[in-house]
Amino acid sequence: MGEETTTVPGARPTIVDVASAAGVSRQTVSNVLNRPDRVAPDTLERVQREIDRLGFTPHVSAQQLRRKRAWAYGFEVNPSGHRRMGHILDEFLVELTVSAPSHTSHLLAFAPDPDDVVAGYRQTLASGLVDGFVLADTRQSDPRPPWLIEHEVPFVSFGRVWDLPELTRWVDVDGHAGVRGAVHHLVDAGYRQVGFLGWPAGSPVGDDRRRGWSDAVAELGLDASAPAAASVQDIDEATDAAEQLLGRLGPDAAIVCASDLLALGALRAVRNRGLRPGADIGVVGFDDTDVAAAMGLTSVHQPVAEAARIAWDMLVDPARHPGPVLLEPTLTIRASSLRED
Amino acid sequence: MGEETTTVPGARPTIVDVASAAGVSRQTVSNVLNRPDRVAPDTLERVQREIDRLGFTPHVSAQQLRRKRAWAYGFEVNPSGHRRMGHILDEFLVELTVSAPSHTSHLLAFAPDPDDVVAGYRQTLASGLVDGFVLADTRQSDPRPPWLIEHEVPFVSFGRVWDLPELTRWVDVDGHAGVRGAVHHLVDAGYRQVGFLGWPAGSPVGDDRRRGWSDAVAELGLDASAPAAASVQDIDEATDAAEQLLGRLGPDAAIVCASDLLALGALRAVRNRGLRPGADIGVVGFDDTDVAAAMGLTSVHQPVAEAARIAWDMLVDPARHPGPVLLEPTLTIRASSLRED
Repeated sequence: MGEETTTVPGARPTIVDVASAAGVSRQTVSNVLNRPDRVAPDTLERVQREIDRLGFTPHVSAQQLRRKRAWAYGFEVNPSGHRRMGHILDEFLVELTVSAPSHTSHLLAFAPDPDDVVAGYRQTLASGLVDGFVLADTRQSDPRPPWLIEHEVPFVSFGRVWDLPELTRWVDVDGHAGVRGAVHHLVDAGYRQVGFLGWPAGSPVGDDRRRGWSDAVAELGLDASAPAAASVQDIDEATDAAEQLLGRLGPDAAIVCASDLLALGALRAVRNRGLRPGADIGVVGFDDTDVAAAMGLTSVHQPVAEAARIAWDMLVDPARHPGPVLLEPTLTIRASSLRED
Repeated sequence: MGEETTTVPGARPTIVDVASAAGVSRQTVSNVLNRPDRVAPDTLERVQREIDRLGFTPHVSAQQLRRKRAWAYGFEVNPSGHRRMGHILDEFLVELTVSAPSHTSHLLAFAPDPDDVVAGYRQTLASGLVDGFVLADTRQSDPRPPWLIEHEVPFVSFGRVWDLPELTRWVDVDGHAGVRGAVHHLVDAGYRQVGFLGWPAGSPVGDDRRRGWSDAVAELGLDASAPAAASVQDIDEATDAAEQLLGRLGPDAAIVCASDLLALGALRAVRNRGLRPGADIGVVGFDDTDVAAAMGLTSVHQPVAEAARIAWDMLVDPARHPGPVLLEPTLTIRASSLRED
């Protein structure tokens, strides 16, 4: 600000100053701020250049106008240490931000209230800053969808709304298909028996992945006594569970796991027996994390960026994108599921 | 909504309905929405219970009122694949959200414009949704701080503002001290020579970490010819660079790395020579990622949650927390820097 502008030195520039400097009407500047999709690209660029050069920031009135179009959606972020699927949710948050149609939609991150699952949603809504929510990490008897429906708050979900099959505005990744495909891959690679290391029964995501394994074992005519074991998401417990599983598996066997962390336990158990992952015992994880890449672990990969783009489509244009969408995961193959180097 | 409320069935509840149901004045309800810190806890709880039960959502006027206190700050989120320090920035985003003083401050995540470093900031500011920014991943000749200062936009930074030493509202982690401490640990553990695998010269963060190594080598009277090598943040390049470094190191040597990804290359190079990380060649990384934990890699740990809390303190109460704050990292010791099991 100062000599190089057309404003009085020291005065805060107004929308009129911007209009005059850019050679457009005041309405056009307002459109640039509020309906940029209706402004010709070169006009948009010229006005934005003047907004920038003059240091113009919209006053409250312009902000209020803007609120009619600049929708913001809340996304609940849990502390890293408290999550079963932390990596995927961090990745989803990043992808959701990056793929936000920024002229119309923004993402407001908020933390949960540890004592009350809906309180964070209630407080964020009461702040007046958001127009709806993107849910993630949905679970059985999840109180959030009914609460949002009751309060007529728009939302979409990354993850099926398991208790409300009539709801369609969700996008999810087909864990059943991912695990089933991993079993087929292992049999193609030459392993003769495939065990499963999952989470304790009762979580819909975990149970779905386990059914992917049991269905594949049945359809491939594998040894019907192929064993399964369960562990919570903890490396030491997973190692113990995998050691018990190995004791029940024959030679030429492989283990499919419900997460990369469980697979890390399986890799340790294999090495503890003096065996080589891949060459002796196949191991496959789920989520294709950095850890899988570092350890040479074959893993089921979730198309998180695509899920984020679809979530925005459903939020912004629900009539055209009514949902639901169940995405197919892919398998990232590394040394841990190859019998020969 | 319906029979169990005191409102006319089907009508949208108003602030008066909430006040009446909770047995408080309309002003108290307004305070609950706008100045919850001024309301007695049991009153706050009672009014919030009625807000929830009645399904009350503030109208635009209440939202506008609320805007006077519910500040939101923008945080730029880059796509995962495009970042040198992705892990730490994802973690910082999560910690920033979790530690936000939610009654007064919220976090709006936004994506950068790939062609223009300040455009994402300009657009987010023009949306009227934010009152300032939290910067991260500051670099040399960073155009964002001067732009924000010129436009009188409040901001704090996770990372020093390298070109503007007069700025004090930043919190950072002392990378120099972290690497220096790692060299001391390695010498205490019995390694006689310590090389450095860093990034190419020219990044202030990388150069600072390298100086931590060279200062420690000098003060410990280690072999002055201790070699350094550089690699971009890529596992194959890092492996090549580490192999060259190993060719210049004697026995009983160790390598300190500027990141866990570089350290992953060093671990591979050690194994490619038929040597054992830890027992034969010490390796230390930086950032203490999940990968470090999985690989048994000793690594410098950044106190990211503390940095996030301090960033909020500086934003919300700059007079009491003027900054700057340089936090000391810690060292998470694992098998890769221990000469005996």
